[in-house]
Amino acid sequence: MDQNAMKDAVGRAAVEKLVRSGMKLGLGTGSTAIPAVRHIGLLLQQGKLTDIRAVPTSFQTSIECEKWGIPLFTLNSAEIGGSLDLTIDGADEVDPQGNCTKGGGGALLVEKVVAYASAAYAIVVDETKVVGNLGLRFPVSVEVVPEARVTATKALESLGAEVALREALRKAGPVITEHANILLDIRFKKPIDVAAMETELNRIPGVVENGLFTRKHPTVFVGRGDGSVEVRE
Amino acid sequence: MDQNAMKDAVGRAAVEKLVRSGMKLGLGTGSTAIPAVRHIGLLLQQGKLTDIRAVPTSFQTSIECEKWGIPLFTLNSAEIGGSLDLTIDGADEVDPQGNCTKGGGGALLVEKVVAYASAAYAIVVDETKVVGNLGLRFPVSVEVVPEARVTATKALESLGAEVALREALRKAGPVITEHANILLDIRFKKPIDVAAMETELNRIPGVVENGLFTRKHPTVFVGRGDGSVEVRE
Repeated sequence: MDQNAMKDAVGRAAVEKLVRSGMKLGLGTGSTAIPAVRHIGLLLQQGKLTDIRAVPTSFQTSIECEKWGIPLFTLNSAEIGGSLDLTIDGADEVDPQGNCTKGGGGALLVEKVVAYASAAYAIVVDETKVVGNLGLRFPVSVEVVPEARVTATKALESLGAEVALREALRKAGPVITEHANILLDIRFKKPIDVAAMETELNRIPGVVENGLFTRKHPTVFVGRGDGSVEVRE
Repeated sequence: MDQNAMKDAVGRAAVEKLVRSGMKLGLGTGSTAIPAVRHIGLLLQQGKLTDIRAVPTSFQTSIECEKWGIPLFTLNSAEIGGSLDLTIDGADEVDPQGNCTKGGGGALLVEKVVAYASAAYAIVVDETKVVGNLGLRFPVSVEVVPEARVTATKALESLGAEVALREALRKAGPVITEHANILLDIRFKKPIDVAAMETELNRIPGVVENGLFTRKHPTVFVGRGDGSVEVRE
């Protein structure tokens, strides 16, 4: 089964199992989350789903929602009131406890605001994203104001991380996030206390948010190469 | 003695006591910090101070430095290398332990990056800013991405704070910071554990930084109504 078909299967499985008419939904970003958004759009167009209010986590998600006519709101909208029933999103890595890293798509800031405002949380991934310990293979993303590039790099190194500025493609210099910040990708040499590290990273001056998600344990939908989808509660 | 003369006196006292030629300086924002910047500019023009490299904390400070020809760098500049010898800044309130609140001028984000990157730290205030407990009279400023206005307000209220969105003058709607964020001004009804609260506020998704400064204890210069300046180490 090719990667795209697998991502379609896992996104569809999450939507079929969890999304109901009348829900306030947070919608994630990236190549595994977007098929779930598309499936919601399809169910809306078929009339199988009604009265969905969606909060997108990025420009990419907004554009996909606009394409399908999925009604968009912000977390500040009176129709949303700062809380969601369910968020579906992808992840860079998921550990056995349901802690995740996110930020490979550059949208971790609003992804975290939305995830942590949701009653239920679902993560859709392919099987390569399931790891024993976070941050050893795929880096943890840290969103930083440009003024703090050097000071935050030093602070992150003093926490034992290897730090790389994320460079852009199709634009000179670093990736700029939707909030005009830069991303430092950090890698650890040995397993970390992920909950403590999530707090510790945010204490660094100039760090806006980080890609460790440890306070909202999701239902994890894992797509397999054979087309099956495993659900981990 | 009028307020302006008093602010001049306290800024001058801090510069005379602490600033030396060759220093890398962080320069603060607001009506009490700017007279210190001016005094540095004057000493440079008189040749009594040489080889100063300054990092400004806001547009206001940059403009004042440009006016006086104070050489400006960023914390990322090779000439600065992410660390400063001394930062001089104002504060909204200072407690007896040297913890401060900042953000009345809207520049707390870069003020904190700069302060925490400095070997020595000096705060210049008038005597009305010296309090027993922070955050009871003057609010603590919290810089928040606009998407998290409602969710962060709820989270702050659950910490026991009264929350007000800072409204702008001479611009419709809320104050927008130099990083395109909004400011939530929060007030507590009883004394807080300021060090724990500094960390707790930054854990809230969408909070970029907060105005509690508890990890860099300054020399405090307190300007009195009679023109004297008290120095508290």
